[in-house]
Amino acid sequence: MYKLNPPNRILLGPGPSDAHPETLQAQALPLIGHMDPAFIEIMNEVAELLREMYGTENKLTMPISATGSAGMETVFVNLIEPGDKALICVNGLFGERMTDVAARAGAEVTRVEAPWGQAIDPAQVAEAVAKDRFKMVAVVHAETSTGVKQPLEEIARIAHDNGALFAVDCVTSIGGIPIEADKVGIDAAYAGTQKCLSAPPGLSPVTFNDRAVDVIMNRKTKIQSWYLDLSMIAKYWGGATRAYHHTAPISSVYAIHAALRLIHEEGLENVFARHATTGLALQKGLEAMGLKLLVENPDHRLPELTTFVIPEGIEDGPVRSRLLNEYGIEIGGGLGVLAGKIWRIGLMGHSCRKRNVMLVLAALETVLSDMGYGCDKGAALAAAEAVFAG
Amino acid sequence: MYKLNPPNRILLGPGPSDAHPETLQAQALPLIGHMDPAFIEIMNEVAELLREMYGTENKLTMPISATGSAGMETVFVNLIEPGDKALICVNGLFGERMTDVAARAGAEVTRVEAPWGQAIDPAQVAEAVAKDRFKMVAVVHAETSTGVKQPLEEIARIAHDNGALFAVDCVTSIGGIPIEADKVGIDAAYAGTQKCLSAPPGLSPVTFNDRAVDVIMNRKTKIQSWYLDLSMIAKYWGGATRAYHHTAPISSVYAIHAALRLIHEEGLENVFARHATTGLALQKGLEAMGLKLLVENPDHRLPELTTFVIPEGIEDGPVRSRLLNEYGIEIGGGLGVLAGKIWRIGLMGHSCRKRNVMLVLAALETVLSDMGYGCDKGAALAAAEAVFAG
Repeated sequence: MYKLNPPNRILLGPGPSDAHPETLQAQALPLIGHMDPAFIEIMNEVAELLREMYGTENKLTMPISATGSAGMETVFVNLIEPGDKALICVNGLFGERMTDVAARAGAEVTRVEAPWGQAIDPAQVAEAVAKDRFKMVAVVHAETSTGVKQPLEEIARIAHDNGALFAVDCVTSIGGIPIEADKVGIDAAYAGTQKCLSAPPGLSPVTFNDRAVDVIMNRKTKIQSWYLDLSMIAKYWGGATRAYHHTAPISSVYAIHAALRLIHEEGLENVFARHATTGLALQKGLEAMGLKLLVENPDHRLPELTTFVIPEGIEDGPVRSRLLNEYGIEIGGGLGVLAGKIWRIGLMGHSCRKRNVMLVLAALETVLSDMGYGCDKGAALAAAEAVFAG
Repeated sequence: MYKLNPPNRILLGPGPSDAHPETLQAQALPLIGHMDPAFIEIMNEVAELLREMYGTENKLTMPISATGSAGMETVFVNLIEPGDKALICVNGLFGERMTDVAARAGAEVTRVEAPWGQAIDPAQVAEAVAKDRFKMVAVVHAETSTGVKQPLEEIARIAHDNGALFAVDCVTSIGGIPIEADKVGIDAAYAGTQKCLSAPPGLSPVTFNDRAVDVIMNRKTKIQSWYLDLSMIAKYWGGATRAYHHTAPISSVYAIHAALRLIHEEGLENVFARHATTGLALQKGLEAMGLKLLVENPDHRLPELTTFVIPEGIEDGPVRSRLLNEYGIEIGGGLGVLAGKIWRIGLMGHSCRKRNVMLVLAALETVLSDMGYGCDKGAALAAAEAVFAG
């Protein structure tokens, strides 16, 4: 009884991705105290490595002690005061979630929308800001629910011209595609650890530039969340005194340290190139199988998360169950309005490699064929192979 | 560079405590998805084991995906609506923190106080509730900042007679002293994993009875925190559909599963007896060394966390540094008004064993003697040994 024996999966869903054995082993290291000088050193290195991932010099860069959605909440509860106006771009579940989180923080939310599967059109953002002044413009860089990659530069410029802060959800982009926060002009961002960083879920790396920190330090009202109050947390992660706030999740910090170090050693450019090639190979393979990618514009497809339409006459659940039970492969179903209509295959971080592309294409071809879907046998693997061959 | 090599400490501070090797190894197990049927099974077992720790049948019993302070925030943001009256007992830093968290959730807070180092007098609670009606009465069961054990039964009765919910901070009591939530009449409670459960920090086990759940389900206003919104989280942890809310911290759930299983196997009564004897041995040893325990009433001393006064003429920092650097022992300093005035020695969970009592007494005797503190050599060890001998 109470035997812990999780099955050995290949995680090709929207996250968590497979963690590297070194990252998992880091969590088996003995605990030390959250005020131990040796732990402070580890925290400093984590912050330094996170700056590299984000492409930023921001001093206030660190992991929040909770998962990605808490990172989202951190951005809104710290930057928004009741009655503040926020312009939120919604083209998927996580943009939708931002409107909920922002409203709970007291924001008056204005939405700019695009159909799920398309990127937000900057012209619509320009139109919205022309009508009002916003404290913040927020957008999702990599929509986990749709697989859409959102270009950021133009929206950043429009936000700044309006005098607004520019906040970005980088949960599924960090470590998978370049963020370049400083170059783009991102004022605040949050991310997840369990996607392209391939660390276990549990932390949310955030970064805030000086402009955003000024806004926090000059609030008129108290931040509604004690746990996510950056005016206090920042003193523990970066202050001269390292004032105790809450007990940091020691093992999770070990894990993200190891995961970030592995990316640093491979080289961020190499990591991005690996994601780009591997994701493209999967997409070409799926298309060769006659499957329709949800994101029509190739420039807006995320390499790390591919979404495609479940063919007519095929049921969602049985296919995913067979992949899980016969192959140990987890892929994702659709969320919200896309539930039952699409599948999501992640090739993130340590999961992002050629052998997983070939395996999932082979497995999918077999399972779909068994269920009566007609496709040209072998075409998918050949198309993927051609991408890897260059 | 970026080598992860934390020193091997003996954690005798106020938490984290040493984790059992099996618990650490659980975190090295491969990840599975948060919607994987195998993970749902693990979640169910964790909930079941947590009910045993809390002494409850409450359906809504599960770990929040963040540390103990987020558990505190979970209780207040879910049960309190703006303008609700909360009576909060304050006799240490964590009672103080509750007033801050409650106020941020919109509570009108009334305080009942006792000096740091003493328990709250139920008569004062009775007096306060006689003057007003409260939605909630909240108290800390085991004050981590002072080492005070708070008797709960009488305050629970007074709260219920007033029609109030009774909420309890069990961060440092869970797995160290009996809670018996159902018998005592606790309506809502939160705990930590890194104290007497000896799991790494990162989760906060909470429990809410039906009365508290009714209050949540009949709120007039939306819960201000999306991340801690139990009306949604409960559907993931216990609902028939297991609706996705946020990505659960897989490795941390493995770890708490292993840690709880170890306690279950040892037997909760045996675990409590081990804490009682071991803590008493330390306390007798310190007294034999001529040191003054902060908590004067022996009935209000926590066995798992002993607080004592730094002797006149002895400096806080240098002693703790020597213990850390020469012995690898971490003990805690004082917090808030007790900073620089007391030390805190935790004997929690896996750290709670005879050999640690003997080592810390021997080390302390040596270091204090070196610094000019006169004590009867060997008396401490003999006094501790006498307790273990029965």
